[in-house]
Amino acid sequence: MCELLRINTDRGVMISDGQTRFSKDGKPIYHFVGTSTFSEYTVAHSGCVTKIDPQAPLDKVCVLSCGISTGLGATLNVAKPTRGSTVAIFGLGAVGLAAAEGARLAGASRIIGIDLNPSRFNDAKKFGVTEFVNPKDHDKPVQEVIAEMTDGGADRSVECTGNVNAMISAFECVHDGWGVAVLVGVPNKDDAFKTHPMNLLNERTLKGTFFGNYKPKTDLPSVVAKYMNKELELEKFITHQVPFSEINKAFDIMLKGEGLRCMITMGH
Amino acid sequence: MCELLRINTDRGVMISDGQTRFSKDGKPIYHFVGTSTFSEYTVAHSGCVTKIDPQAPLDKVCVLSCGISTGLGATLNVAKPTRGSTVAIFGLGAVGLAAAEGARLAGASRIIGIDLNPSRFNDAKKFGVTEFVNPKDHDKPVQEVIAEMTDGGADRSVECTGNVNAMISAFECVHDGWGVAVLVGVPNKDDAFKTHPMNLLNERTLKGTFFGNYKPKTDLPSVVAKYMNKELELEKFITHQVPFSEINKAFDIMLKGEGLRCMITMGH
Repeated sequence: MCELLRINTDRGVMISDGQTRFSKDGKPIYHFVGTSTFSEYTVAHSGCVTKIDPQAPLDKVCVLSCGISTGLGATLNVAKPTRGSTVAIFGLGAVGLAAAEGARLAGASRIIGIDLNPSRFNDAKKFGVTEFVNPKDHDKPVQEVIAEMTDGGADRSVECTGNVNAMISAFECVHDGWGVAVLVGVPNKDDAFKTHPMNLLNERTLKGTFFGNYKPKTDLPSVVAKYMNKELELEKFITHQVPFSEINKAFDIMLKGEGLRCMITMGH
Repeated sequence: MCELLRINTDRGVMISDGQTRFSKDGKPIYHFVGTSTFSEYTVAHSGCVTKIDPQAPLDKVCVLSCGISTGLGATLNVAKPTRGSTVAIFGLGAVGLAAAEGARLAGASRIIGIDLNPSRFNDAKKFGVTEFVNPKDHDKPVQEVIAEMTDGGADRSVECTGNVNAMISAFECVHDGWGVAVLVGVPNKDDAFKTHPMNLLNERTLKGTFFGNYKPKTDLPSVVAKYMNKELELEKFITHQVPFSEINKAFDIMLKGEGLRCMITMGH
């Protein structure tokens, strides 16, 4: 976690002089999380820039800049399921599907997707999800449902919703003795993660991850390379493509939950 | 975690026939956690018995049957500090001192002992503790004190008190990005471990352990071997030795906190 450049949504200015590089009608336009990528040209700290394969199509690999890398890395770098293991994925949005894709690449034999929206289940099969659980269909906590499906608990779980109750379920659904739960979703400011400590003493591990433990500057080029050599398909993560002039339409699609994985194309 | 033999303080009988093997005046005497070792001879499930070096002095290696192995293993098997790292140990009773000893054996360069009882600090030096923090001496939470002492947090922490607030401090005192906290202490039934999930997202790891992740039947002989070849000193863990006929005196010593590490000798 880089002390100097760690995500700071309050900063909005360059570190060197505390100033913005853009303005409109004399009013400063602030950076968002250090990059301001909703413009064709920008000024960013060199630590926020990485060189990728110049052949890589930017309208595809741009999805690696946040959620997709986060989900992939959460499974591949942090949960690290072994071949043949069972992985539970909480939340089947873009990040959760990327986490499922990571589990598939790691050779998991059962990938259980958990989501309140049943329309997401069919689509999730493309990302390796083999079984679906909708917590609404059960009278008992979802961690107990998963424990029954898996003879005691999943080997790994990855939480991609940001809902603190899902985080607790994701932790408590892994098998004692060896289970590892990974928290990815960003919680609300006042959320408290609560569990009985006995769940930890029973040799479960709880981890969180930021950007899937990838170090962006040094690791991102290798994820792009995975796409370029066809180990990793990115096209299936893109359901809509809209020009920048219709950016608000993209937010509408996202908020309605119609297109889970929407991309805004710059410079068209 | 063995499904069949896992510690079950309610059982108190043999698994094969649901009966006790002892009685007095017609009343059954129940097993305690499957072994009933406060007798010279006992009947135990074969899974609860392990063969150790017959040369090993039982009045020394008996301390390996619970707390000392738990503390050692919590550090060596679970926290796994690297050479030169900083380890915070919460609670300097027998388990915590064993955890410190584990950190020393692993080559930690700073071992910070945290305890409310300052009389424990001097003794703890023998177990490798290099610095002491008494939370009572500070106005701020002890995790903040440790963060200041260590430029952001300890590399590893091991919690050996069973107090849920100490567990939370132990977790929050490790450095983001790589810190690992290990919970060893047994909590109260109604305790809830609470932390803001952001503490996890910042790439900390929270683990619990039972018996230091040693598998008693297969691993305990190797810990006894460490004592026999002088890698591990057990004598310093024994402060008092009382005969079985004075067992209540041993409990008095323990409850008064006068002798931290008391052993009751059988068969004298």
